[in-house]
Amino acid sequence: MRAAFKACGVITLTTDFGHTEPFVGVMKGVVLTRLPQARIVDLTHEIPSYSPREAGFWLSRCFEYFPPGTVHVAVVDPGVGTPRDIVGICCRGHVLLAPDNGLLEPIARCDAQALKLRLTAASLAPLGLSPPSATFHGRDIFAPVAAELAAGRLEFAALGPPAGDLVPSRGQDPSFDHGSLQGSVVTIDHFGNLITNIEARELARFSRPRVRVAGRDLPVLRTYGEAKPGEYLALANSFGLLEIAQSGGNAARSLSATRGTTVCVEDRT
Amino acid sequence: MRAAFKACGVITLTTDFGHTEPFVGVMKGVVLTRLPQARIVDLTHEIPSYSPREAGFWLSRCFEYFPPGTVHVAVVDPGVGTPRDIVGICCRGHVLLAPDNGLLEPIARCDAQALKLRLTAASLAPLGLSPPSATFHGRDIFAPVAAELAAGRLEFAALGPPAGDLVPSRGQDPSFDHGSLQGSVVTIDHFGNLITNIEARELARFSRPRVRVAGRDLPVLRTYGEAKPGEYLALANSFGLLEIAQSGGNAARSLSATRGTTVCVEDRT
Amino acid sequence: MRAAFKACGVITLTTDFGHTEPFVGVMKGVVLTRLPQARIVDLTHEIPSYSPREAGFWLSRCFEYFPPGTVHVAVVDPGVGTPRDIVGICCRGHVLLAPDNGLLEPIARCDAQALKLRLTAASLAPLGLSPPSATFHGRDIFAPVAAELAAGRLEFAALGPPAGDLVPSRGQDPSFDHGSLQGSVVTIDHFGNLITNIEARELARFSRPRVRVAGRDLPVLRTYGEAKPGEYLALANSFGLLEIAQSGGNAARSLSATRGTTVCVEDRT
Repeated sequence: MRAAFKACGVITLTTDFGHTEPFVGVMKGVVLTRLPQARIVDLTHEIPSYSPREAGFWLSRCFEYFPPGTVHVAVVDPGVGTPRDIVGICCRGHVLLAPDNGLLEPIARCDAQALKLRLTAASLAPLGLSPPSATFHGRDIFAPVAAELAAGRLEFAALGPPAGDLVPSRGQDPSFDHGSLQGSVVTIDHFGNLITNIEARELARFSRPRVRVAGRDLPVLRTYGEAKPGEYLALANSFGLLEIAQSGGNAARSLSATRGTTVCVEDRT
Repeated sequence: MRAAFKACGVITLTTDFGHTEPFVGVMKGVVLTRLPQARIVDLTHEIPSYSPREAGFWLSRCFEYFPPGTVHVAVVDPGVGTPRDIVGICCRGHVLLAPDNGLLEPIARCDAQALKLRLTAASLAPLGLSPPSATFHGRDIFAPVAAELAAGRLEFAALGPPAGDLVPSRGQDPSFDHGSLQGSVVTIDHFGNLITNIEARELARFSRPRVRVAGRDLPVLRTYGEAKPGEYLALANSFGLLEIAQSGGNAARSLSATRGTTVCVEDRT
Repeated sequence: MRAAFKACGVITLTTDFGHTEPFVGVMKGVVLTRLPQARIVDLTHEIPSYSPREAGFWLSRCFEYFPPGTVHVAVVDPGVGTPRDIVGICCRGHVLLAPDNGLLEPIARCDAQALKLRLTAASLAPLGLSPPSATFHGRDIFAPVAAELAAGRLEFAALGPPAGDLVPSRGQDPSFDHGSLQGSVVTIDHFGNLITNIEARELARFSRPRVRVAGRDLPVLRTYGEAKPGEYLALANSFGLLEIAQSGGNAARSLSATRGTTVCVEDRT
């Protein structure tokens, strides 16, 4: 089976590098050296340090908003320089590259059609990479490989042999038990909204759902503006997930909620 | 009258989304899906949450540094999902799109030639948008509309009917009374400089102007380096506004000044 | 001698402007107005305010990852509006532009072949710049000059007369004395790693090197993952410099180290 990937010249970058040092800029320099017409988009560089799970979470929710043929690079890589592998998956016309540390596993698991390959020194040899440093594979491996894929000079199938099982993600999936759906906060956005791992479509299990978090019961509304200023609400957010917000406020701060805080959905009795 | 807008393929983005989540990146993905050769520039994504006024302030000072034919998108949108409108204005060869929440009103007010249109479901129907989410119109409406405008496939005039009056901005304009010009701090920059809403050209009203802020009298100088280290000064900044700085220091911190702090200009007696 | 610079249309930006205001975006608007097809890459905008040395440090380590023919603009410019000069250097096929405040001096000093020019009003006259503001030369001079260089319409040699000696950088170089190599922390990255001014190749002076910092002796390892979680280590980083890290932790915080902290390398006895 051939991978349905036709390069369009777009590359996205997701890292935990932050914006203080020129690490991301240097990756772009390497890409432009190989593919002058590349269009490079920052997805985020503020993934919490060493949280492959959160990088994979955002990537899974975002990659399909880019044109088919995009190469998505995710470098959250605490094991850089140790013998961890790099994997590439081809999923619905996109290629995603990341260390094999759980980052891509949930995406691959959700799509039975996804092709998974494991990069090898042999498969990269034709690219003429300089010997990689021990600490910055984003610049030395990911950027040039992404550029060659985005240029259409490197076929996805040439990345390496089938990957077999990927290293599993550390996150726990939501569970449904005794009429109660239990999940958790995966990330907290810039506005203090709590984004959970509960798919909004799961709300259909309930006739009069209410959401419990941090000892409070919250109504499920359609949008922020339907709650009075200061009130809490739950809603189906724009990425199809259950989200908890405070109208005009910062829910994370007001509820003292953090990543991992338990969130339950039940029927109102 | 036809709007003098000839698309050049450049789009700017101004939001309060921050850099932590991939919200801005996803907007760019949507743009590139419709217009692969779009050139997208971030103006700022650090507008204080829910401050349309500050977004409009910066946009009004910046948009003309871009090539004519640029589409400027500003999404500071506390009312997203409620029945607030989206408006577009065409001003000196540029198109600006934003929620009708006061963001664009000062720009439209200052330019009698500006054309103002109100987007409607009917006018957007030919674009084939997916049904918008209740919480992320930046991705679902603004990005695709901007892409179609920037591509030259959507005429400005086709955005919708004349907008009539826009929702007014909440900011107060400076006033001149008894020989004293009174304004306020609109924003504080990265260096701690206080940027006011007083047009620098208004200084011409005075023969020996001095500036009062936080109980101090400051001289009006030409540039930061004309004050000794640690001294305060006022100057006409590079955007044509009165600004207050501390040479080699952080004026906002040293003066305990914030957005809204009163600033007066008077003649030295 | 002609400078070996052939413009490729890429421009990098390094500033201390931060991401809160649209200053960087406006510079990009000015570039795109003159060169619509420019590809502009942010190196970093988080240089500590008024630290030309740190800007020059990063630029020296990064510029060669970009394609030859790139124009690199660095605006860390406490003297803006005072009679400081602007200089351009041509180094290994790249052009670098900055205020003459020590930022570029170390780069010029390390490359005897580098050509150094001093911009003059006369040499800029043909570019048709608007009269520059007193406080934002990034927008009014650097951006348009970079665009003209990147477009190939302005020759490097036309920037101005030979610069002679540049203003020296304030940083101190490492010293070797009595078998001990002494340097210091130049910058601290997003992960809390301490980046020193000691070239990693200098480690070859020692048969069994150990690194002393903040009262501790650290081993020199190859990569972060070779230390146990929580342990400190020194390594040759991906930019060829000695770096101090804490495996899975934040070395700067744990060691209370800051910019300027002394770092010594000695042989284990």
